[in-house]
Amino acid sequence: MNALRRLIESHAFESAITALVLANALTLGLETSPELMARFGHFLHWADQFLLGLFVLELVAKLLVYRRDFFREPWRIFDLGVIAISIVPATESISILRALRVIRIFRLISAVPSMRRVVGGLFSALPGMGSIFLLLGLVFYVSSVAATKLFAADFPDLFGSIATSAFTLFQVMTLEGWTSEVVRPVMALHPLAWVFFIPFIVATSFTVLNLFIGIIVSSMQAEHEIPTQHAQDKMAEEQRQILDELRALRREVAMIRAEGRSTPAEVLG
Amino acid sequence: MNALRRLIESHAFESAITALVLANALTLGLETSPELMARFGHFLHWADQFLLGLFVLELVAKLLVYRRDFFREPWRIFDLGVIAISIVPATESISILRALRVIRIFRLISAVPSMRRVVGGLFSALPGMGSIFLLLGLVFYVSSVAATKLFAADFPDLFGSIATSAFTLFQVMTLEGWTSEVVRPVMALHPLAWVFFIPFIVATSFTVLNLFIGIIVSSMQAEHEIPTQHAQDKMAEEQRQILDELRALRREVAMIRAEGRSTPAEVLG
Amino acid sequence: MNALRRLIESHAFESAITALVLANALTLGLETSPELMARFGHFLHWADQFLLGLFVLELVAKLLVYRRDFFREPWRIFDLGVIAISIVPATESISILRALRVIRIFRLISAVPSMRRVVGGLFSALPGMGSIFLLLGLVFYVSSVAATKLFAADFPDLFGSIATSAFTLFQVMTLEGWTSEVVRPVMALHPLAWVFFIPFIVATSFTVLNLFIGIIVSSMQAEHEIPTQHAQDKMAEEQRQILDELRALRREVAMIRAEGRSTPAEVLG
Amino acid sequence: MNALRRLIESHAFESAITALVLANALTLGLETSPELMARFGHFLHWADQFLLGLFVLELVAKLLVYRRDFFREPWRIFDLGVIAISIVPATESISILRALRVIRIFRLISAVPSMRRVVGGLFSALPGMGSIFLLLGLVFYVSSVAATKLFAADFPDLFGSIATSAFTLFQVMTLEGWTSEVVRPVMALHPLAWVFFIPFIVATSFTVLNLFIGIIVSSMQAEHEIPTQHAQDKMAEEQRQILDELRALRREVAMIRAEGRSTPAEVLG
Repeated sequence: MNALRRLIESHAFESAITALVLANALTLGLETSPELMARFGHFLHWADQFLLGLFVLELVAKLLVYRRDFFREPWRIFDLGVIAISIVPATESISILRALRVIRIFRLISAVPSMRRVVGGLFSALPGMGSIFLLLGLVFYVSSVAATKLFAADFPDLFGSIATSAFTLFQVMTLEGWTSEVVRPVMALHPLAWVFFIPFIVATSFTVLNLFIGIIVSSMQAEHEIPTQHAQDKMAEEQRQILDELRALRREVAMIRAEGRSTPAEVLG
Repeated sequence: MNALRRLIESHAFESAITALVLANALTLGLETSPELMARFGHFLHWADQFLLGLFVLELVAKLLVYRRDFFREPWRIFDLGVIAISIVPATESISILRALRVIRIFRLISAVPSMRRVVGGLFSALPGMGSIFLLLGLVFYVSSVAATKLFAADFPDLFGSIATSAFTLFQVMTLEGWTSEVVRPVMALHPLAWVFFIPFIVATSFTVLNLFIGIIVSSMQAEHEIPTQHAQDKMAEEQRQILDELRALRREVAMIRAEGRSTPAEVLG
Repeated sequence: MNALRRLIESHAFESAITALVLANALTLGLETSPELMARFGHFLHWADQFLLGLFVLELVAKLLVYRRDFFREPWRIFDLGVIAISIVPATESISILRALRVIRIFRLISAVPSMRRVVGGLFSALPGMGSIFLLLGLVFYVSSVAATKLFAADFPDLFGSIATSAFTLFQVMTLEGWTSEVVRPVMALHPLAWVFFIPFIVATSFTVLNLFIGIIVSSMQAEHEIPTQHAQDKMAEEQRQILDELRALRREVAMIRAEGRSTPAEVLG
Repeated sequence: MNALRRLIESHAFESAITALVLANALTLGLETSPELMARFGHFLHWADQFLLGLFVLELVAKLLVYRRDFFREPWRIFDLGVIAISIVPATESISILRALRVIRIFRLISAVPSMRRVVGGLFSALPGMGSIFLLLGLVFYVSSVAATKLFAADFPDLFGSIATSAFTLFQVMTLEGWTSEVVRPVMALHPLAWVFFIPFIVATSFTVLNLFIGIIVSSMQAEHEIPTQHAQDKMAEEQRQILDELRALRREVAMIRAEGRSTPAEVLG
């Protein structure tokens, strides 16, 4: 068991897994070419199954070594999920499910330490943004319900149900064709519709920018590139300590001087 | 009265209100489905009226408890406004007014403390941006008047009046279809129109980005994530005090040393 | 003359000018309405001429009072330019020239101190961005020349001359219709055209974002919202001075102590 | 040889080269006009060849002077590459290759010191962004393979091969026509396609914004405009030293005082 652990935690093992993921990324890419599939389809399929087998073996080995601790490291759970999604479609023939196998390539994120750090940084910044996410969700829900109530009858394709409205409003938020495809047609029937759409655009564009910049600044501060207010507060606190210490020292020196002056007198007295 | 105040300010009461707002958000969402309305429309309508009644009761209770202080807390005014808008349409049957009832769901913002903080942070950053808002408004007004004077005759749909021009210029500012739908057609008749539109795009895109980033940075500094120049100025000031204190101390010590040297002489003298 | 200077520099005078500019903004706006022009056109035209007369008088008064110093203050030159542009069209009847009168409303920027500060802040940030402007201009010029050489024959409307190419490339940079209107048609004839357009999009989007953020950060630092590296370098320098001062002091104190120990001995000796 | 080196490194020589590049930029621009080519084509072609000759001579001179050190300075390699690309097409007549000559104008970047600094700053910020680049590439590769597997059969124009899919996904990432041209048509056949596209849009928009802002912040910090966490950490460390020094000093002074008190006693004793 210890030998297995040493193998799994060795640098060479990690590099081998990275190489295998890259090889799998290549075979999955080659599978999209009809010409190559006609000639090497058999081999590509076999290679894919073989590599999947190796990834399953790797996970089984880690499960055996770490037992319950396996689930303490989020990246191992990520690997487990990614491989689990890949096994299901391997036994099916529906094209949508087979496309899911491609997700396996994301295994590369957990295999390369620097990417693990970047993605980890982004995800650790998410919780601090919870309220803005909630706010954005609330604005979207309220706007979708309102848009459905207002425009469902006249524009069933754009605002037929809450889901359709949410999709159309997402389009409006990205500013893609918002005038020609959505707002101008709606305003032809409801001339005051801009009262609904323009505040929506301003509010959501702003909230999304705020969300994105917030996450980016947080993750940059986590990687120590941008100074935080917290660090500066600590420095200001320490500076106040220095000033206090210094004033106490000066009082002490002033007293020494006063005592020094009186001492000679006493000596002479 | 004190019992009522204790009830209103209790954590359980706040949670109950949050739950009721969520329930109302759900019923308002379900109302958009024609199938559900055909079967449960009566119940949904009744639930909506009942929940609205509860929100009115809550406000009445708060008005009784806080009296004039009620209007000191902006979020209570927000709640009052949101519920007031909801009561009007409840008695009407015009679809646009009924859609306004949905605004009630925004009551969630004042109910959840973390969202209250985020929205409050954004709004408290607005006043500092007053001049940029004014500047953007000025650029828009001048451009709309100029565009109407220049292009109203040839493009009544796009630039027929100041309001139409302002809408078209808003579209141009968001860059949505600005070439194919607006500027290329205009340039077909007025080849120099780009002299008007390209500076407009550059100026407004830049001003809006400045406005958004300004608000975001302000609200992040308010939440103590990014250090402010003000805090650093205070630190620099304090540092200068430390240096002054230290130099005074050194002079004092130098004098002690000088006195110490002369003292033995005097003693011996 | 001194009385005139006192009048011009009084707060009431400034407020009066601001009010007149706002009044002029209103009359210029009302002029765009055909109905209002049919009924009050005569009065609006008269009011506009009257207000323009007042602005000219103000400038003449300032020229008399400040003489050569008039041109030392950039905002007075701005006012002179804005009013000069307005006088020309007042005597003409060509619609394009008449629309230029609207520029007069920008006089508001120099009249309101907070807007003067914002616009001044932006412009003072421009020189530091000179190199990025130059770089963007260079990329645009090279790309326009190359695009004209490559695609002028096949797409005269989009890339017929350097000017047409520059406009089309500006459209591509704003990402508006870049695929459907520009790159997909071009790629139908030149399949490798993406090698030209995608680097162009990445390079210019990035440069423009860099330019905008650079100006915004500079102008925010100028208004003391964001700390500068310069201020921090000064603090670090001062901190080093404090440390040096402190070590010198400690040496001095150590010598006092050494002398203090030997002195009593000498005294006793 | 030393005379040649002095010439090459003189300020006048650098200015002359800048002037020649600008002259060449002008002749290359004029070549795009059919009228000018009909009348002065011969002269423009001759001027272009002559200027190219001068640039080649400059490079040969630098190669002779610096020998192996030539390749130590990246900007000299940049110049060599830019001129090398220009020589090939000068001998060819295929229009695409002739357009490449325009790249020669980028020689201006290495000729103007301030632009060299800006471009250098951007490129030096790239390596720190390696992981985000890799992540973006991974997302693009996985999405392209998945999109090809899913939609190649139904939309050969948009998703026929990995390359076509990557181009279409780049279009979707820039948000240009993503609904009307890509996602709405796809959703007409695969109603759940938004499950693929909306996360793709959110993830890539965010990653690109992160990448751009990261590079901009890095290059601004490199030019000392924005303070770094590193500088602040150093200051905090130094502050701790000051506090330690100060406490040691105070202990020393306290001991002097204690000795001073006992000394007079001893003196008196």
